[in-house]
Amino acid sequence: MATINDNYLKLKAGYLFPEIARRVNTFIEANPEAQVIRLGIGDVTEPLPQACRDAMIKAVEDMGDRHSFKGYGPEQGYAWLREKIASHDFQARGCDIDASEIFISDGSKCDCGNILDIFGNDNVIAVTDPVYPVYVDTNVMAGHTGDINDKGEYEGLVYLPITAENNFTATLPTQKVDLIYLCFPNNPTGATATREYLQAWVDYARANGSIIFYDAAYEAFITDPSIPHSIYEIAGAKECAIEFRSFSKNAGFTGTRCALTVVPKNLIGKAKDGADVEVWKLWNRRQSTKFNGVSYIVQRGAEAVYSAEGKAQIKALIDFYMENAQIIRDRLTEAGLAVYGGVNAPYVWVKTPDGLTSWDFFDKLLHNCHVVGTPGSGFGAAGEGYFRISAFNSRDNVNEAMRRILEKF
Amino acid sequence: MATINDNYLKLKAGYLFPEIARRVNTFIEANPEAQVIRLGIGDVTEPLPQACRDAMIKAVEDMGDRHSFKGYGPEQGYAWLREKIASHDFQARGCDIDASEIFISDGSKCDCGNILDIFGNDNVIAVTDPVYPVYVDTNVMAGHTGDINDKGEYEGLVYLPITAENNFTATLPTQKVDLIYLCFPNNPTGATATREYLQAWVDYARANGSIIFYDAAYEAFITDPSIPHSIYEIAGAKECAIEFRSFSKNAGFTGTRCALTVVPKNLIGKAKDGADVEVWKLWNRRQSTKFNGVSYIVQRGAEAVYSAEGKAQIKALIDFYMENAQIIRDRLTEAGLAVYGGVNAPYVWVKTPDGLTSWDFFDKLLHNCHVVGTPGSGFGAAGEGYFRISAFNSRDNVNEAMRRILEKF
Repeated sequence: MATINDNYLKLKAGYLFPEIARRVNTFIEANPEAQVIRLGIGDVTEPLPQACRDAMIKAVEDMGDRHSFKGYGPEQGYAWLREKIASHDFQARGCDIDASEIFISDGSKCDCGNILDIFGNDNVIAVTDPVYPVYVDTNVMAGHTGDINDKGEYEGLVYLPITAENNFTATLPTQKVDLIYLCFPNNPTGATATREYLQAWVDYARANGSIIFYDAAYEAFITDPSIPHSIYEIAGAKECAIEFRSFSKNAGFTGTRCALTVVPKNLIGKAKDGADVEVWKLWNRRQSTKFNGVSYIVQRGAEAVYSAEGKAQIKALIDFYMENAQIIRDRLTEAGLAVYGGVNAPYVWVKTPDGLTSWDFFDKLLHNCHVVGTPGSGFGAAGEGYFRISAFNSRDNVNEAMRRILEKF
Repeated sequence: MATINDNYLKLKAGYLFPEIARRVNTFIEANPEAQVIRLGIGDVTEPLPQACRDAMIKAVEDMGDRHSFKGYGPEQGYAWLREKIASHDFQARGCDIDASEIFISDGSKCDCGNILDIFGNDNVIAVTDPVYPVYVDTNVMAGHTGDINDKGEYEGLVYLPITAENNFTATLPTQKVDLIYLCFPNNPTGATATREYLQAWVDYARANGSIIFYDAAYEAFITDPSIPHSIYEIAGAKECAIEFRSFSKNAGFTGTRCALTVVPKNLIGKAKDGADVEVWKLWNRRQSTKFNGVSYIVQRGAEAVYSAEGKAQIKALIDFYMENAQIIRDRLTEAGLAVYGGVNAPYVWVKTPDGLTSWDFFDKLLHNCHVVGTPGSGFGAAGEGYFRISAFNSRDNVNEAMRRILEKF
């Protein structure tokens, strides 16, 4: 009799975004004339950069001639893409990362989940609260937790609260943890990490033999030169950190699909017998066996991100979204709300007024203003009383949404 | 201290194809003038169909206008693609498969591995021997096996030998197994399954509460109308089978990346407490949490496979490769070798002559004829003494490879 993975039964009924979609659809059915503006899910809205499109059209044409046709590519990604990433994203910032340490994938969401494949089931795992739900849910699925409690926390996970009180940067754990998820610029709070703060984490990890999963999906939104873009800008990080990056939010690849994971070669994990094992070898084996590389066409599109035209077009995209963020911050402040984030990050994190719960605020915003955001409690218990607003939308929609909030909330 | 997944340490040092690449590279370095012809890895060589390229160029252009731009798509794939697949590949053959039961992915290799996420670790698992190595290695990684023995078999797996003696179709197990991998047309042997044979497996699975993982990646090569293309052509299969399909081998998508998995809604697995659980719900949750859908551009390319032009172009591609297979069969038979497969399948499975081992034959073919194939023993212990030759190449290369074998082997 085939049995199922019972850990799946521990998962909360709905992932956050499907629940939002359900409430929005119910509202639209009841109010078909409403012009709903979605500032909820962190999805980009503006066209793909011309340089990426040109490169992909050229790549499709390559596929039409048997001499330039590409069959299976390297599971790790093409060298020409890995080398450009190593050079532009890492070496240019003084990070000693080699192309061979970069693995191209079809998404950071996939990599953040799949990375658990290569680690033991006995690791103590720390996440911030609130947190990107994928980190938690993939650990539940892998059997790394107990049941969920009334607060919405899974037994066995170490939750590190991030709130206005600690400036949305978690205090280092007093207990020993083995795997730590950090995300900067942060989803959902929009907080950033200073060099000193990250150095404290790296020092903690090295002292405890821990490994940091560093999610840098939003690094392109950093404008302050003092804020590190990569964990590898921190001394010692190559010995204790894996970094996840994506083309989704800088180049608008959410529907095109390309990301990367950096696994340094001198990163070590422990076997049951205490032996040192190179984590790079395990991830290389995992990707070779359970993955077949990213579409050649898409990799050519990602490569164009590093061309002069690509860089200029991406800067314009980022600037555009960051102007949106500034407008959101300004108008919500004007509306009397306490706002965080939205500087060096595309998310604005709002304190709900009048003691409203996150979902109450969601419903009120949807019904009164026809604006969709994301309830902070969907990201964890400590997100209760907060609300995420995304800067990913057209200028007209952002202006109109803010106008409605100022007038009707 | 972060621990690793010790199961990875049980894996044999090299996956089959990297070892082939290593030997070929060593040979080429020593013989730089040799014109090596690769009939080893099952990778296509001919251009992508015009219909698919046209659709992808149109899709790239869609990405350039914010009104037709696509961000995150459904994790399960776009409805327009799922509906065409359901209609053309399944309903047209009398299979009662709905679009909602089809999950688009970036590769069958990924799906074949990832599917284990949703099943229990206590299942008894059966594979044929020889077999596509990914089925075995992903079970090793998931901790479903013991160590490897001297024969190259992992303890705990049930191996079902397929050899000339049983016409390369495994005898049903006498013991009870829970998860069964079947692949038809078969990789590596090129064998096909009759309706009666598959009915026997479906009956076995239903009697034992087992689930069949049916890999139909090569179904497009079936020309004999009596051979089923899908397991769902067999009565009762919807209650006991998951099917994997790919655009890699019919439409040449090995470098473009698109595949699909069918999980019927009435497929049931058992929870630890004996409760029935819908497997569809688990896979849907897995894909929603650990995957973000296939590139919009690639999905549009896959959709074009079902257009009138696409169908005609794919038929021409398949016909071309199958003529290659016929040439390989004919010339190797002429050379005095016993050959199997290569009819309704793109692989020819050759008995090595004179008691040569599979790797001896590999080395002899490489050194004498500068032709690369795949050693049967790389697919499992019972593949020893066999050799796989792929029909995926240009006509000139196939003719030249066969000429050399006839002359120089």
